[in-house]
Amino acid sequence: MPTDRQNVNNGMTTQPETAPLSPTTIDLLRHGQVATPDLFCAPSHEPLGISGWKQLTLATQTGQWDAIITSPSRRCHDFARLLAQRLDCPFAVDARFGEMDFGDWVGQTQAAIWEQDAQLLQQLWYQPRRFIAPHGEAMEDFIARVNQAWMQLQTDYAGQRVLVLTHAGVMRVVLAKVLDILYQKSLHFEIGYAQLTRIRIYPDGIASLVGHGLPQA
Amino acid sequence: MPTDRQNVNNGMTTQPETAPLSPTTIDLLRHGQVATPDLFCAPSHEPLGISGWKQLTLATQTGQWDAIITSPSRRCHDFARLLAQRLDCPFAVDARFGEMDFGDWVGQTQAAIWEQDAQLLQQLWYQPRRFIAPHGEAMEDFIARVNQAWMQLQTDYAGQRVLVLTHAGVMRVVLAKVLDILYQKSLHFEIGYAQLTRIRIYPDGIASLVGHGLPQA
Repeated sequence: MPTDRQNVNNGMTTQPETAPLSPTTIDLLRHGQVATPDLFCAPSHEPLGISGWKQLTLATQTGQWDAIITSPSRRCHDFARLLAQRLDCPFAVDARFGEMDFGDWVGQTQAAIWEQDAQLLQQLWYQPRRFIAPHGEAMEDFIARVNQAWMQLQTDYAGQRVLVLTHAGVMRVVLAKVLDILYQKSLHFEIGYAQLTRIRIYPDGIASLVGHGLPQA
Repeated sequence: MPTDRQNVNNGMTTQPETAPLSPTTIDLLRHGQVATPDLFCAPSHEPLGISGWKQLTLATQTGQWDAIITSPSRRCHDFARLLAQRLDCPFAVDARFGEMDFGDWVGQTQAAIWEQDAQLLQQLWYQPRRFIAPHGEAMEDFIARVNQAWMQLQTDYAGQRVLVLTHAGVMRVVLAKVLDILYQKSLHFEIGYAQLTRIRIYPDGIASLVGHGLPQA
């Protein structure tokens, strides 16, 4: 069976009259481990721990990007800014790539949340579309803002190689969008610290998942 | 957001009374490039080309597996058998991990098929569930046999690390099963030569996609 639907298009369909654009490659990189252990969701000011820095350094050591975008959270932003300096490439902060706002759960351990809100925590996994943490953001709103940022990214950086430093929840929303599946199904993907998901968008608008969980770019 | 649903289970739910089993790790590895260029689907006797051998050698050089299973096609079988010898591990051929039978299309170039059967070729991508190549296997039958082999594999090799040398179509069926999505959606995954998809099955039966498109195991 051919590798992907691009095989079918290559040389087979009518070529566009203008020269074809390059595909856009977007790498989503999850932040590394934060300094405080066992948090369900770290607060925005929480820095990476030493091992988190190492994880991200390893994950990006051979990668080449034309632009770097980051969530405003320190665990993404601090490393992204330095990487952009090292690669001497454009750098932008986009709050829409920030993690879902877990409200009162932010900064708590998972064990503590389980004690207070076991049912709600379970809902996040079994009925995620209806989930809202206490004083937090609704899943539907979260999905809408990430998708909006994702669509704009493809326009603003068409034909380029872009790295986005972001969070597991954000990556799940994008995976669901790219694969055209429900957010729930994206829970079957494991997303470890400093793991990378590579998506390629072809000039005909088709998006493909090229890689996931890559140890290095 | 936590990495995956395992986070929710760890230490949170009642532990089983028996010691927990290890997860089962199943790596699906697509064969390398075959000797004859540009075939839509190679015949079963078609060998790997030199670059195909190199691709598979690179993809497996650091991997460790307890057992190796292969499709009977030479492009999978020849390398799998030698790898099992090198790793001194059990080796089995399972015809159910063979590629979909494309009937009269086997051994033809994609350009030739496009000339004869353009509409049918397009159906493979846009209505794959109804697809049958001339004198070939129905997609529904193909999906059923791969799923059957996939379920049995999890039982026969529970708790082990298994490598399956196979084909892109087979990998798409497994991806659809693991992610609980329609086969059509698996077409959003790119599956290059000698690329690996790693799936982990936890003792509670939950399957996760750990990696895809990994350059090395």
